[in-house]
Amino acid sequence: MRMYDLIMKKRNGGALSDDEIAFMIKGFTNGEIYDYQMSAMMMAIYFQGMNEQETLALTMEMAQSGDMLDLSSIKGIKVDKHSTGGVGDKTSLALAPMVASLGVPVAKMSGRGLGHTGGTIDKLESFAGFSTALTEEQFKENVNRIGIAIMGQTADLAPADKKLYSLRDVTATVDNMSLIASSIMSKKLAAGADAIVLDVKTGSGAFMKKEEDAFALAEEMVKLGKGAGRNTVAIVSDMDQPLGYAVGNALEVREAIETLNGRGPEDFKELCLTLGSHMVTVAGKAADAEKARAMLEQCIEDKSALNKLADFVEAQGGDRELVYHPERLPKASITEDIASPADGYVGRIVCDEIGMCSLILGGGRETKESEIDLSVGLVLRKKVGDSVKKGEPLATIHANDADKLKEAKERFLRAYIISDTPVIKNELIKGIVTE
Amino acid sequence: MRMYDLIMKKRNGGALSDDEIAFMIKGFTNGEIYDYQMSAMMMAIYFQGMNEQETLALTMEMAQSGDMLDLSSIKGIKVDKHSTGGVGDKTSLALAPMVASLGVPVAKMSGRGLGHTGGTIDKLESFAGFSTALTEEQFKENVNRIGIAIMGQTADLAPADKKLYSLRDVTATVDNMSLIASSIMSKKLAAGADAIVLDVKTGSGAFMKKEEDAFALAEEMVKLGKGAGRNTVAIVSDMDQPLGYAVGNALEVREAIETLNGRGPEDFKELCLTLGSHMVTVAGKAADAEKARAMLEQCIEDKSALNKLADFVEAQGGDRELVYHPERLPKASITEDIASPADGYVGRIVCDEIGMCSLILGGGRETKESEIDLSVGLVLRKKVGDSVKKGEPLATIHANDADKLKEAKERFLRAYIISDTPVIKNELIKGIVTE
Repeated sequence: MRMYDLIMKKRNGGALSDDEIAFMIKGFTNGEIYDYQMSAMMMAIYFQGMNEQETLALTMEMAQSGDMLDLSSIKGIKVDKHSTGGVGDKTSLALAPMVASLGVPVAKMSGRGLGHTGGTIDKLESFAGFSTALTEEQFKENVNRIGIAIMGQTADLAPADKKLYSLRDVTATVDNMSLIASSIMSKKLAAGADAIVLDVKTGSGAFMKKEEDAFALAEEMVKLGKGAGRNTVAIVSDMDQPLGYAVGNALEVREAIETLNGRGPEDFKELCLTLGSHMVTVAGKAADAEKARAMLEQCIEDKSALNKLADFVEAQGGDRELVYHPERLPKASITEDIASPADGYVGRIVCDEIGMCSLILGGGRETKESEIDLSVGLVLRKKVGDSVKKGEPLATIHANDADKLKEAKERFLRAYIISDTPVIKNELIKGIVTE
Repeated sequence: MRMYDLIMKKRNGGALSDDEIAFMIKGFTNGEIYDYQMSAMMMAIYFQGMNEQETLALTMEMAQSGDMLDLSSIKGIKVDKHSTGGVGDKTSLALAPMVASLGVPVAKMSGRGLGHTGGTIDKLESFAGFSTALTEEQFKENVNRIGIAIMGQTADLAPADKKLYSLRDVTATVDNMSLIASSIMSKKLAAGADAIVLDVKTGSGAFMKKEEDAFALAEEMVKLGKGAGRNTVAIVSDMDQPLGYAVGNALEVREAIETLNGRGPEDFKELCLTLGSHMVTVAGKAADAEKARAMLEQCIEDKSALNKLADFVEAQGGDRELVYHPERLPKASITEDIASPADGYVGRIVCDEIGMCSLILGGGRETKESEIDLSVGLVLRKKVGDSVKKGEPLATIHANDADKLKEAKERFLRAYIISDTPVIKNELIKGIVTE
């Protein structure tokens, strides 16, 4: 078998066999197939696409290119939740203790990554003492004992995907639905969960700007998950404006705690309930999503989810009292309100730009070496459709540096578009994809 | 400027500017742009194409990536002839002395390359003592004195094309008309001729299997030549069967000499007259192609072309007497006729396979290190449309090794398709492209 022939076949619109895909991914991972052949192949795939069988074969091959986590010593049906990412997405912080409090085991291996804010692990480090440096033994033991654990990524999960994504990233071959879906799903499959609930974001702050693309990706990933024998559901949700109000690490932790106290933003709570109801259902802890939703509302109501968060923080070395006293979480030295420049309605929020404000303030990572300031960020006061008076605050900025604050404020004002006429509010849940 | 953005632009169907193409080719040549980005770009070009302006910019940039030969010290209008290659193509051997005898300066820098037979330089080495190791000084002096010289390629012509072609060759991105045309023309432009006559082959033994593709390539190259300020004409000619009868180095030299004696194969003579008439015309030595053709027929008739070949061979160290005594050229030790297996008509000759017979016998190079046996090859006795009786010879094989002869003979018989019913002969000249 020669890579040249495979490129030619795909270029001419042919379908690659399972064996051909295995040859290609194995050879690429071990360096026998050159980057320049693989990038030509990726561009050919960009134009000719891949069918379902090819996409599944690629996904499985990448999943099996490194370690495949074995979570079988953890009791129960392990459900993994994955979000395609967006601004103010602190869902795991509230959702994980919610479902864990209902007996769904949460066993997550997580990385840090780059972004407007830190990742879930960074956010959790707002709890003084919290650490993800668990051994695999402690990790599994914690899940069995308190139902939830997160550890830093020690295993070599889907290295073929990592290598391939790096190549696609510099050769303009990222934008292909099959390739995007297989990249995400290969990592999820390697991470060992029995079932997967996906949160596919759409809108100006999402990777999938168009709703139809988000649905296409959701369908592709659900097919891949099921094709690999894992029960998979995808929710398509709005990311045309930040989720909730808080953007920034400790600020998002505070908002998650508020939510577990029953005082969270409407949209954020709704997303947690929607995703959670599917997680609880696929885990076999409720007969249907409606019943699961009632259970989730109850675990907020009776504070069992909040207590589960405290148990989790404590089990990984953090101060559980902070869960009950969020005012003691890291705080920025300067807070400043941003006044609306006009009367009217919030017409549009350029979501990515709000993320950039957080990055400018120091809340995210531009490079792997960047240090994150957990205390900084923004708390929005108005969202799309809200009416606003001139001078009324649109948001509060939390900063530790006056120059950065000034820069973020200017950027913020350009990201908020005030309309004269009433504006329809965004619908949060766009749809649920189960097959 | 970033290569990533250029790939994205082309992928999305945009046109690259002259500056962008210059950036890309300069960066690729000096190693600042990686192979994996260039191969993705080539695949994007395969799918999205390039417009006339882009193709010209690419051609000029590649032509200027190395040495640009300066032939200005050679008097007269220098006309370069280029063939896209095929089996039995010994055209330069007869054509160069023909046009030189009419005062058209022939100044050719040539490489050896790989193929079924050697290149023009290899073939000329059938003349004992002949050498192309001329200095640039001797080369120009010879052209001015006797009108014709060929030297080995010492200059670094179009290195960008060389590098890019190597990459395309292993990434299935050769088959794009603009890329093929710019590759050929960049080398021709760097080689310094004032005018270019192209012989674009079509058929089973040609790179362009389909006639329409050959015409498209011809048109593209004529546009590029004119766009670069060089008078350019292209002939599209048949390569669905070998040209003439002889395939093999010394055998082809003998056939070229026969042709200069007025006894050449009809098709080969016709091609020389057609190409030659355009060379003589663009060089300003005749008012039109018809008058040029009469002059060319005369130079065969009066032996001035034959004598020019002898002068040329002598000027480069070879034995001029061999031109008048071709029976003294290298000869193989074994000759064997291949008998027709049936009565009928030659219906088709799988042209590439006849080339393979020559390669098997030792007449060509598989790798750069291969040594060529100048004496071996085949002389066809029947061509497409000829009637044949069972047992009558289809060809004579010239070999130095009985095993190789056997292998070539078997292969030969599979390449000749004998038909029961009469077959229309191939038309040699398919058309002439002047704009």
